[in-house]
Amino acid sequence: MQAQLIALDWGTSSLRAYKLGPAGVVLEQRSLASGIMHLPTEPRDIAGVRCADGFELAFDAACGDWLDAQPNLPVIACGMVGSAQGWSEATYRNTPVDVASLGQALHRVRSLRGVDVYIVPGVIEQAGLPNVMRGEETQVLGVLQGLGANALIGLPGSHSKWVEVVDGCITHFDTFMTGEVFAVLSKHSLLGRTQQICEQFQAEAFDRGVRVALSQDGQRGVLSTLFSARTLGLTGELTAQQQPDYLSGLLIGHELAGLPDRTQPIILVGAAPLCARYQRALALCGFAHVSLAQEASERGLWQLAVAAGLTQPVLEA
Amino acid sequence: MQAQLIALDWGTSSLRAYKLGPAGVVLEQRSLASGIMHLPTEPRDIAGVRCADGFELAFDAACGDWLDAQPNLPVIACGMVGSAQGWSEATYRNTPVDVASLGQALHRVRSLRGVDVYIVPGVIEQAGLPNVMRGEETQVLGVLQGLGANALIGLPGSHSKWVEVVDGCITHFDTFMTGEVFAVLSKHSLLGRTQQICEQFQAEAFDRGVRVALSQDGQRGVLSTLFSARTLGLTGELTAQQQPDYLSGLLIGHELAGLPDRTQPIILVGAAPLCARYQRALALCGFAHVSLAQEASERGLWQLAVAAGLTQPVLEA
Repeated sequence: MQAQLIALDWGTSSLRAYKLGPAGVVLEQRSLASGIMHLPTEPRDIAGVRCADGFELAFDAACGDWLDAQPNLPVIACGMVGSAQGWSEATYRNTPVDVASLGQALHRVRSLRGVDVYIVPGVIEQAGLPNVMRGEETQVLGVLQGLGANALIGLPGSHSKWVEVVDGCITHFDTFMTGEVFAVLSKHSLLGRTQQICEQFQAEAFDRGVRVALSQDGQRGVLSTLFSARTLGLTGELTAQQQPDYLSGLLIGHELAGLPDRTQPIILVGAAPLCARYQRALALCGFAHVSLAQEASERGLWQLAVAAGLTQPVLEA
Repeated sequence: MQAQLIALDWGTSSLRAYKLGPAGVVLEQRSLASGIMHLPTEPRDIAGVRCADGFELAFDAACGDWLDAQPNLPVIACGMVGSAQGWSEATYRNTPVDVASLGQALHRVRSLRGVDVYIVPGVIEQAGLPNVMRGEETQVLGVLQGLGANALIGLPGSHSKWVEVVDGCITHFDTFMTGEVFAVLSKHSLLGRTQQICEQFQAEAFDRGVRVALSQDGQRGVLSTLFSARTLGLTGELTAQQQPDYLSGLLIGHELAGLPDRTQPIILVGAAPLCARYQRALALCGFAHVSLAQEASERGLWQLAVAAGLTQPVLEA
């Protein structure tokens, strides 16, 4: 099947490339470690020119062969590739923002091989504490189809986002540094010293962590409850194998305790194992309506490319 | 002046040694980097025996010459030296505990040179989430003199403690991993990448951090507000030099927001620059009565040694 679009989800630590066919169907996909903080450094020839630019090198590695085969394929990208540290800065759009309208605001950068890459702008909220996203706005668009007017979309990760959508507009969002805090505490703090990584998910320990976050002890905040990951080990109530999942549950529980409304439908977008943890924790927190979304980035990128006129929508049979 | 006691405040990262004279007056003091996680490893002769034990080596380096001069000086120690990872484990005492009574519960370990070292037991609270301290119980005793019946004693540090004291008894305490979280985030997270260390205290940025923690945004918890240390940089509201003190104020603010009663007198014990930050943040939080205590460890160790009969109290003129 002939490809119609190359779609790149290009974040801090990884670069996912999709070759999309008619109606946005995924023909082929690749995952590279070449996030914007981990770009290739080995110079190589691109389009007959010696090149040492990390973005060009990563771009070529991700989809150079696809472009060799179909040189006129349009290319769209979202994520940190559009940040100030990215390939070329795509200025943020302010909330409230109609996510479908972002297709009219793509930022173009010309690659060495002469192909234009259209970068989706991120979104900024400036009421109160500023908040930013890059890439999640595209995922939000990708899951909106078929949803009611209002939804709360959760995007767990290093920096989890919780996005309130009203009538197709992002009206408000929050960021929680849960994943990164888990990683740095496990690797670099006292808590990591007594942890033992365990292949099997320690459900009981995870649930206990969530419950502590929701308990009266949790009211003092995560800086206080964190220490229990150590003391419950000292008192023999948590084994070394249970400590990582206890900490995970504790942090996710504190994140969820910070969410407002527990009645509106929640859609989770992200890696399946992480979403499974959030789904479990949301149930313990009493959130009633939770569902999982798939292929959010590639669907969102497809829709934005169509809106921008980069490719043609094809009606499904 | 003739010494009467050697007092050691021996924690995870440092070892402070005091030579105390009559009435506990400090005749000499030393600070070594030989905390129980940083013990010396180079073998040396101690009392004519080749020795490779880190605790013996650190002990000898801290006060071997004092003991050579006065071999019968009693030695008392508090802190992590009495933990399971320490020289010899001094079993925790349960709350509520009369801190003065800890002098009757010292744990003895005999050193290679034949001198006994008396280790103060730590305190454990087992109602609700378990909590532990080692060393702080001695500091609490050291500042109790002259206080009213009730006080809240704050001991800022890597793992800050807040200790409720009623009639000389520790009735309850909390631990906040504020200092360690600040250190690992600054060193290993995204937040550190845009920070620039600045010699001068950035008061405005610090105060802003405290206020954010106390604000409505702060209600979502520190996992959420943390991200503002980055976004306020992105929007130009915080310079790279201001970001470390903003983060410091933010974390300390979240810690203080977790404290209950704002009316009872607070005594702060700890390193002067850190206590100054807490004093500033406490004022912003509306805590009315805050004072600083000095020489808490050496005073507490002296009192416990007197209570244990290791040395004689001498009435001051």
